[in-house]
Amino acid sequence: MNFTPSHPEFASVVQASFERQGLMKTLGATLDRIEPGRIDISVRYRDSLSQQHRFLHAAVTTAIADTACGYAALSLMPAGSEVLTVEFKVNLLRPAAGTCFVAEGRVVKPGKTITVSRADVLAYTDGVPVLIATLLATMITLAG
Amino acid sequence: MNFTPSHPEFASVVQASFERQGLMKTLGATLDRIEPGRIDISVRYRDSLSQQHRFLHAAVTTAIADTACGYAALSLMPAGSEVLTVEFKVNLLRPAAGTCFVAEGRVVKPGKTITVSRADVLAYTDGVPVLIATLLATMITLAG
Amino acid sequence: MNFTPSHPEFASVVQASFERQGLMKTLGATLDRIEPGRIDISVRYRDSLSQQHRFLHAAVTTAIADTACGYAALSLMPAGSEVLTVEFKVNLLRPAAGTCFVAEGRVVKPGKTITVSRADVLAYTDGVPVLIATLLATMITLAG
Amino acid sequence: MNFTPSHPEFASVVQASFERQGLMKTLGATLDRIEPGRIDISVRYRDSLSQQHRFLHAAVTTAIADTACGYAALSLMPAGSEVLTVEFKVNLLRPAAGTCFVAEGRVVKPGKTITVSRADVLAYTDGVPVLIATLLATMITLAG
Repeated sequence: MNFTPSHPEFASVVQASFERQGLMKTLGATLDRIEPGRIDISVRYRDSLSQQHRFLHAAVTTAIADTACGYAALSLMPAGSEVLTVEFKVNLLRPAAGTCFVAEGRVVKPGKTITVSRADVLAYTDGVPVLIATLLATMITLAG
Repeated sequence: MNFTPSHPEFASVVQASFERQGLMKTLGATLDRIEPGRIDISVRYRDSLSQQHRFLHAAVTTAIADTACGYAALSLMPAGSEVLTVEFKVNLLRPAAGTCFVAEGRVVKPGKTITVSRADVLAYTDGVPVLIATLLATMITLAG
Repeated sequence: MNFTPSHPEFASVVQASFERQGLMKTLGATLDRIEPGRIDISVRYRDSLSQQHRFLHAAVTTAIADTACGYAALSLMPAGSEVLTVEFKVNLLRPAAGTCFVAEGRVVKPGKTITVSRADVLAYTDGVPVLIATLLATMITLAG
Repeated sequence: MNFTPSHPEFASVVQASFERQGLMKTLGATLDRIEPGRIDISVRYRDSLSQQHRFLHAAVTTAIADTACGYAALSLMPAGSEVLTVEFKVNLLRPAAGTCFVAEGRVVKPGKTITVSRADVLAYTDGVPVLIATLLATMITLAG
């Protein structure tokens, strides 16, 4: 699906908001793609982000997926809006084994108040992607 | 509900698994309560765990809630079992404002293969708790 | 939790809306309890509501649970409001075996725009209840 | 994605199970497509399936989506297996206005024990489809 942004500065709005998130810095997450209704965020594996079996912790997978969903929604909102996650559900499909993890966030249905987004998370090992999680989220617009 | 653990060493099993999680160290999370079918995990607010408005990032709220649900399930599993999160859904009810955040994980329905758990997350400010999130999760037992 | 309704006629508003639902008639569902933030809806087993193993179909369990959640939310909304389900998640905990099924819907967090509700569904056999499902839902208020 | 069925009779297994569901008859639902990992189920609007505003009741939308997800999973399981829904989450994206509603169920990730499926529900008016709901489900295999 192709979406039309509500204002021309959507990319810098998303970028600025992302940079204010202390947690994204803590995780070493980067914002790799900013398009209307589509945001990619990635992290690289480190032991400080692991669960008990040295895979990436599901909370990190979830963090980048939820954040990608939120900014995918924000990219379509009017200038001055803020986005909040109302709720999400995530299925963890495979062990999070890999060196790099990319959450691809996409808007499913934009709306004035409620936007629904989804994200797939891909784990890369030697450049080969495997789908490890899928997340479905409800976002709300806070008017500026 | 009162649950009977499947083996007497459940508390040390949960403790040992928790300590192997690199992410829990990174978040500064602590395991505050270990009972059969009931686990509490808490974190204190720091800027390195924030979202863009200086509240606790929803991913951290989610991380402690999911982990509390998983260990609540593990506390009832036979010796040698491992627990994996199949999926969860979380509703973020209020802004995560506070100095300390406690996820109270409880088993809803134990099972041989599938265990369903839920967690409420309370934000404390000056000792007063406010419910900020509720999470409902499906866990699976991996036999030892 | 005790909730204060926003207007005195909440019970008749819920009752009238329920009676306009063709599906509730088709299922033979009844509205058994109407309190502020708490609604119970029940159905009795019939073969026309079954899944392939002659248990109550999960869609019927879900139908009464979602509807109880929605009306629990509506019971706290201002006069003239309508309620819509934004989304829900349901865990089916045990086979839906029994003669009567009661969904107990409760508001978790009321709000001006978004209300979060949950419902437990109990299956009764010879008067003994068993928890067979739990549902967590996000509702939205449509102003009158 | 293309999936290979585990046994050649998957289509008749799905068909036979569908026909045993009393509720599907009550809803007038039909099984329109049976492919490995992909099942479509549809219903036509009738007042007996309505909610209070004469749209299709969300429970009917959900019923065909969950059932399509379950049979999409069953289509890939070994001979003699049964499928049970562990849980699902559904987002209701738009009012269910239309004359015919089609749930397109697809397997996201098959597995020996757990299969994850998703379904989109399209509402047709004068042959034009609109996406009204999306559902993400966790299914479990019961060995024969």
